[in-house]
Amino acid sequence: MTIELYYWPSIQGRGEFVRLALEAAGAAYVDVAREPGGQARMLKLMGDKGLPHPPFAPPFLVEGKIMVAQTTAILLYLGPKLDLAPADEAGRLFTHQLSLTLADLTAEAHDTHHPIGVSLYYADQRPEALRRASEFREQRIPKFLGYFERVMAANPVGDTHLVGRALTYADLGLFQVVEGLRYAFPKAMQARERGWPRVIALRDQVAALPKVAAYLASDRRIAFNTDGIFRHYAELDG
Amino acid sequence: MTIELYYWPSIQGRGEFVRLALEAAGAAYVDVAREPGGQARMLKLMGDKGLPHPPFAPPFLVEGKIMVAQTTAILLYLGPKLDLAPADEAGRLFTHQLSLTLADLTAEAHDTHHPIGVSLYYADQRPEALRRASEFREQRIPKFLGYFERVMAANPVGDTHLVGRALTYADLGLFQVVEGLRYAFPKAMQARERGWPRVIALRDQVAALPKVAAYLASDRRIAFNTDGIFRHYAELDG
Repeated sequence: MTIELYYWPSIQGRGEFVRLALEAAGAAYVDVAREPGGQARMLKLMGDKGLPHPPFAPPFLVEGKIMVAQTTAILLYLGPKLDLAPADEAGRLFTHQLSLTLADLTAEAHDTHHPIGVSLYYADQRPEALRRASEFREQRIPKFLGYFERVMAANPVGDTHLVGRALTYADLGLFQVVEGLRYAFPKAMQARERGWPRVIALRDQVAALPKVAAYLASDRRIAFNTDGIFRHYAELDG
Repeated sequence: MTIELYYWPSIQGRGEFVRLALEAAGAAYVDVAREPGGQARMLKLMGDKGLPHPPFAPPFLVEGKIMVAQTTAILLYLGPKLDLAPADEAGRLFTHQLSLTLADLTAEAHDTHHPIGVSLYYADQRPEALRRASEFREQRIPKFLGYFERVMAANPVGDTHLVGRALTYADLGLFQVVEGLRYAFPKAMQARERGWPRVIALRDQVAALPKVAAYLASDRRIAFNTDGIFRHYAELDG
């Protein structure tokens, strides 16, 4: 069955966690809103009042009769199909839990440039953004990445992955978060990332996977930019 | 097997979504941190470097060999066991998707009083909170509750529940969110809630369930307060 991904066509954003999973697995999919006329089709579908399972916002995925929104729910659905989730219940649940924690970190990264509200431009909330970004750099990045380092160190079967000994969508998500943080906060990350050696090694391992490397080098990988979730504004990088 | 819930003992917070599910199902559980010495036990367990699946933060749940954190992952795990999730995959996934959207709304409600950072007091971010709360009241509450109203209206088997025709943990979560918003933003909610008649009818239906009513009347239900996620500060209610 064809997998259709619906997400904003000009940013990585939350959709990138899904794109990375599909690409790493070599899955066939259509990135609908990037096709000609696709964004209009996405908006029309979202507005259809007859949908039994409407999305609150992109990304959402359609496969046959399944329509599922929320990044982490999409990954929960795709994980086993793409062989990117452990076979056992406890492992699957923990992979999902990690994915939710990555989503929390991502939402907080977004709020560094939008601390007051999504309906306002960055320029309209810049003083607040300066304060929030400082807290994020000093307190939150170390707390989150320190947690993922701890999880890898405690992995009973080895410290090369977050869960088990094979690649999961949580590993891909951690790669994406490190890339996003490096783009948005290069100085803050450079000053700190030696404190999380396992996390950085996993980032390097994921980047070197042939399918991921091919994707990153392709024009399917949208560049980070200041419309996305991870944004580089020099004044927000301490 | 005994279900142990670990969460901060003096607030409803995110743990309340789990407490409500356990209570509505009449499940036996221990609210560990509310027992004598329980909060110290919770903190000690969280700090145990040998845990293969450590939580990033409370709430977390332990049942036999399962340890699971993140409110929505806990509900995903408990839903089928407590008969609070549909039997079919699409229904289960949609229930989870709605639960994630309720968690997003809850996080945004939190950020109305903490727009700059969790390490600071409300008093240290009051001007920013006034701006963020205004956006939240005017834009975000209507967007979220309007979405849940739409979901109920589009439910193919009737508009009395979010998913299917039986109670799910998503219904319980929507009840909790309405209660929290009414506590935190009574004026804003009173001015608007007639726009979401199905949502309010579901709130009333949940409140009247015998097990839920008994729980709400008991001392197990912690009162809303200004240490929790939903906080009432009169100046933030427009």
